[in-house]
Parts: sequence; C-alpha cells; structure tokens
Amino acid sequence: MKILGIDPGLDRTGLGCIDVGVQRPRLMGMECITTSPRQPLPARLHALHDGLRAVVRGWTPDVVVLESLYAHYRHPTTAILMGHARGVICQVAASCNVVLVEYLPTRVKKAVVGHGHARKDQVQGMVTALLQLSQRPEPNDIADALALALCHAHVLEHDQSAVVRQPLPARLRPYMRRRRPVITKGRR
Amino acid sequence: MKILGIDPGLDRTGLGCIDVGVQRPRLMGMECITTSPRQPLPARLHALHDGLRAVVRGWTPDVVVLESLYAHYRHPTTAILMGHARGVICQVAASCNVVLVEYLPTRVKKAVVGHGHARKDQVQGMVTALLQLSQRPEPNDIADALALALCHAHVLEHDQSAVVRQPLPARLRPYMRRRRPVITKGRR
Repeated sequence: MKILGIDPGLDRTGLGCIDVGVQRPRLMGMECITTSPRQPLPARLHALHDGLRAVVRGWTPDVVVLESLYAHYRHPTTAILMGHARGVICQVAASCNVVLVEYLPTRVKKAVVGHGHARKDQVQGMVTALLQLSQRPEPNDIADALALALCHAHVLEHDQSAVVRQPLPARLRPYMRRRRPVITKGRR
Repeated sequence: MKILGIDPGLDRTGLGCIDVGVQRPRLMGMECITTSPRQPLPARLHALHDGLRAVVRGWTPDVVVLESLYAHYRHPTTAILMGHARGVICQVAASCNVVLVEYLPTRVKKAVVGHGHARKDQVQGMVTALLQLSQRPEPNDIADALALALCHAHVLEHDQSAVVRQPLPARLRPYMRRRRPVITKGRR
C-alpha cells in the first residue's frame, strides 16, 4: 500500500510517499512544491494544482493523508490562505480518485514519537530513524508530510478499528471532538 | 466586457455575470453551484471545480471578481473552509487564464448602494434595480455575486485609476491596508 502524506502551504507544500507492505515502511519519494510570493495567488494555486497532479499520477498512492483542521490556529489569516492550498489538494485527490484520511497533529506525534506534544525536531528524528534515511529530510515540510504517512501506516498496523469510513462533516466543530481519523472517498 | 462575480461558499457558490458595453450593465447569466454537506469535502470541492469550469468556459468572462480576504471573520473555522472553496475558484480562474480582481465588502456596498455599511436587502434591491430584473435574485449568494460584478463595472466607468495591476501578496496584512482593488493575472 502506498501512502502519500501532504503538509499544505502556499509557500511550500511538503510531500512524502511511503510503501507499506509486509516489511517495515519504505520511502518511495519525497518532494516539495514551492511557489513564489511574488506570483499572483491564482497562479500559485494553479502551479500547486499541476505539480500535485503530476506527483499523484507518478506515485499512484492508494491514500492521501492530511492534518485535520483544528480550531486553535495561531494566525487565522494565514490559516485561511493555507485553506486555499488545502482546498486545491482535496480537489486533486478527488479528481484522481484517491482516498483522503485526516489526523489531528497530536495523533500524528503520538504515533511517530510516542506522545502527542513532541517537539518538531523529535518528529524529524523519528521519521529519519523509522525510514532509515541517511539524513533528516529538508525542508521540515517534507518531514511533516512523511510523519503523516507514517501515522497512517501505524494506524493500519496497530489500530485498524480506528479507521472509520464516513463522510467529512461540513462544519468544523466535529473535528475538535473527534478522536478517530476519518476516511473520505473522492468522487468516482 | 464580460464580468463574472463570484461569492464563494462550500454549501453554495453564487455566480453572476454581466455584460458592460457602451450601454448600462446587462445581465448575462446567474447560477448557484450547491454541494451537499453529506458528501465528503474532496468530492464537494471537485464538484465546485467542475461546475465552475463549465460556467467559465460557457460564459467566457474577461474578468472574475471576488471579495477580498479581510481579517475580521466572525467564524474563523468557517472562514478556513470558505478558503478551501476560494482556493479552487482562484485555481480555475488561473487555469482558464481569466484576470482576477478583488474588492473589500465595504467597497462593493459603496459602489452599489452608495455607502459602505449598507444592509444586505439594500444591496439586493439595488442589484435588482440596476440590472432591471423582474424580481430579486435568489438565493442571496447570486445577488452578492452580481453586486461584485457591478462594483467592478462601476470602478471601470468612474475610477479607472483605481484599478492597479500588481500581484497579490502572499500574506494577508496588506489586504487590510489596501484601499484600491488589485488585479491579478492567471498563469498563461
């Protein structure tokens, strides 16, 4: 099974794909799509759309993993712009007919490091160790994307019951209460 | 010149297109793209993407008009989800090579009604009168979209100097200071 983790952003979107079979997770590929702040917003989103589509078609993942939306964004305005990138990513997943899964940041940290409030460098260190990489993935966005993919691999291995197939609610409040990941299926 | 106003939303996206020539603005078409909250988020965004693409290709507008992002959203979480829809709209504009213009809500109200804090029903009434419609456009999202298009028509007619061609900044703060609309050009 090929799992593609994505850490969305307008400046940088980190992508990390792992292959999970009978053996331990193996790195398939990692990439970072960057767009210039000097470009107009539509052009940046279009570049992200095309770049992501090429990656999804090349790596043919079975599932895309994103961080869930949560209520306590420090910078709401930046969060709205991140929402622009996230919207494009969700649309590409649906157009490529790839399942989308979401996990809260604490869930990802707990799966990868062992506790939900691990520091960024701890996550990066564990990603490097788990995938037996020669050095830490750079930039951080790629490490975060790989952590998302590893979290889903961990859930598949240890906690199958936690994967609930149900549509994502339109409103955000349920995200805050939910403890379990939600799988959404792109349009056929 | 054909101007397409868009009022983005995950539940309902209002679209209103007007034609501005030597005579007064004339209604070309109005539509509302709705998606069901029961569908997964990616499927909803994909439906919006496809619906919008069909509309843009059918009406072939010269310019797309959106409401600028502003900092004081009452519900930040809903605003992030609206950002998902807005991201898809910006991407479609770029992929169809249509210019994107943005105006603050107060600017739109001032152009259509005469003052920046007009009520919703006043905006709807003026849209109905200016376009000589037999009844108020329903739902409200369409009226808001037509108001955006009429605002741009007003600026083109009365305030050419206000249309500045420059790329949109990545961060949001400049939006708050800006008094003038910004035109962004989709990728060629």
